[in-house]
Amino acid sequence: MAGPNSERRAAYRNCFSAEPILRKADSDFAAGRILPRFKRLALRKYPQGNMVPPHRHLDYEAVLLCSGAYRFRINGTEMELTPGEGILVNIGDQHEDWRGDGAKFIGFSFTLEAFPATNGIPALLAPGVSPQEQRFRIDLKEAEGLARKIYEEEQRQTAFSRLIQEAISLELFWRIIQGLPRESLSTGFLDNTADGSFRARLSRLFQDHIEEVLTLDDIAKQLGISRTSLTNKCNELFHMSPGKAFCRCKMERAGYLLVNTRLTVKEIAGRLGYASEFAFSRAFRREFNLSPAEWRRNYIY
Amino acid sequence: MAGPNSERRAAYRNCFSAEPILRKADSDFAAGRILPRFKRLALRKYPQGNMVPPHRHLDYEAVLLCSGAYRFRINGTEMELTPGEGILVNIGDQHEDWRGDGAKFIGFSFTLEAFPATNGIPALLAPGVSPQEQRFRIDLKEAEGLARKIYEEEQRQTAFSRLIQEAISLELFWRIIQGLPRESLSTGFLDNTADGSFRARLSRLFQDHIEEVLTLDDIAKQLGISRTSLTNKCNELFHMSPGKAFCRCKMERAGYLLVNTRLTVKEIAGRLGYASEFAFSRAFRREFNLSPAEWRRNYIY
Repeated sequence: MAGPNSERRAAYRNCFSAEPILRKADSDFAAGRILPRFKRLALRKYPQGNMVPPHRHLDYEAVLLCSGAYRFRINGTEMELTPGEGILVNIGDQHEDWRGDGAKFIGFSFTLEAFPATNGIPALLAPGVSPQEQRFRIDLKEAEGLARKIYEEEQRQTAFSRLIQEAISLELFWRIIQGLPRESLSTGFLDNTADGSFRARLSRLFQDHIEEVLTLDDIAKQLGISRTSLTNKCNELFHMSPGKAFCRCKMERAGYLLVNTRLTVKEIAGRLGYASEFAFSRAFRREFNLSPAEWRRNYIY
Repeated sequence: MAGPNSERRAAYRNCFSAEPILRKADSDFAAGRILPRFKRLALRKYPQGNMVPPHRHLDYEAVLLCSGAYRFRINGTEMELTPGEGILVNIGDQHEDWRGDGAKFIGFSFTLEAFPATNGIPALLAPGVSPQEQRFRIDLKEAEGLARKIYEEEQRQTAFSRLIQEAISLELFWRIIQGLPRESLSTGFLDNTADGSFRARLSRLFQDHIEEVLTLDDIAKQLGISRTSLTNKCNELFHMSPGKAFCRCKMERAGYLLVNTRLTVKEIAGRLGYASEFAFSRAFRREFNLSPAEWRRNYIY
């Protein structure tokens, strides 16, 4: 009988192919470097249940209820979770909890860090978000699987166990973010991280027009924002002007075409909207410190 | 019948407790911020097998053989992998591969980034490492489980799928590092990442002597290195002097004691080797912008 597990296995068998899942341009450009710095991670069980008097949070805290009962108050609003639900406590929130007998939780506290740290770190949650909007939902089996792996790695204690635990926690973190209502996240956070965000839309726009010459006006118009706001956001996110970012995109595509096709340098220049092979080669060398021909000779995937 | 799976489940049931797994001081200090930037990730299958002519790598590449035959040459040395083994191709390596019919691989290429990027990025591999030492071994079932999750997330395509994929790749990355011979890794990389490294030993030393006053000489002697080398390493890793790093450790412990015990501020000062409550409070405020009393009032875990 073909159950969901055998379907899953079949899907996985099919996932091996000659095509890569992630390509250079995707992951280079889309990957945000907003990262949580974990302060504490706990798998907690309260055989007797208990309550925690009102306290204020100086870090973010994610609390996921695995089983049992959990009631709490955030900034005066009383709520209750069912297993598989969690709450993301905001920095500064006033929090007060009641845990039922035998309640089990996965919880961690964290701050955000941005790399490179330039214009500060965006808040995770939108301003004025209500406690109800801080509720998230997650696949409990998946989350508990991650918690189990963190625990197993704790027993193993190899030289890299701590970093493996961090990576697993990072997956849990993004799954929690994924489980929050999108409206609950701040614009700054979304702009840096989410697909469909400014970062992702700009990246898609560049890919779609990679054979063309785009002016600042063209880009701003396509994204439906002003030139100033385009330039500001671009500087904030990529530390370069929109034009420079577009050029980098073209050069990454050029690097790919040089290695994976037999197109001549002149043809590649044409495909990337360069009128002259010379201008293209100059831009390429500025980006990679190699001429297109040197790149093709050296850099074969 | 109690198989390994039921044992595993039992171990997991026991892992929920009132005690956190990771505590603040641990994860704050031990977590390296050397991160891979993934360029390409692929689950590749070659029904017909093939060969790739000699090429030079400009990124690191990890190739893990899941099934089938894989022979290759790195810098002239010919090798062969069995399933569950992988090879970490170094930047600059000359590489040439033969893949057998139906061979399946998990492969990704990456560069390293350091945050904050200060004194450059250490090489991953030790200088002069031989191709044999670039071989790693990994739990194939675990690695394939991670690959499957990356693939599943690719189908899902939510706003955070890309970042979830990155986190899973990061776990795979650290498991591969864990599977390499330790001697194959460069000192700079180990110093920044591994437990038992300079970073970890310094952190342990601080924890063990947190009630004392340690001079630069004391610390250098305990670690068996010179004062200059201690200061240099500390600046390199933490961007502060050894004394400042020790002070930060004490203040983190102070923050913990204030919230989790009923010790007076004077008692906590004493426990951290401060002769005067005043000097302690001043150091505390310098670290957290709050007085110990304010911290205690506001910051309850």
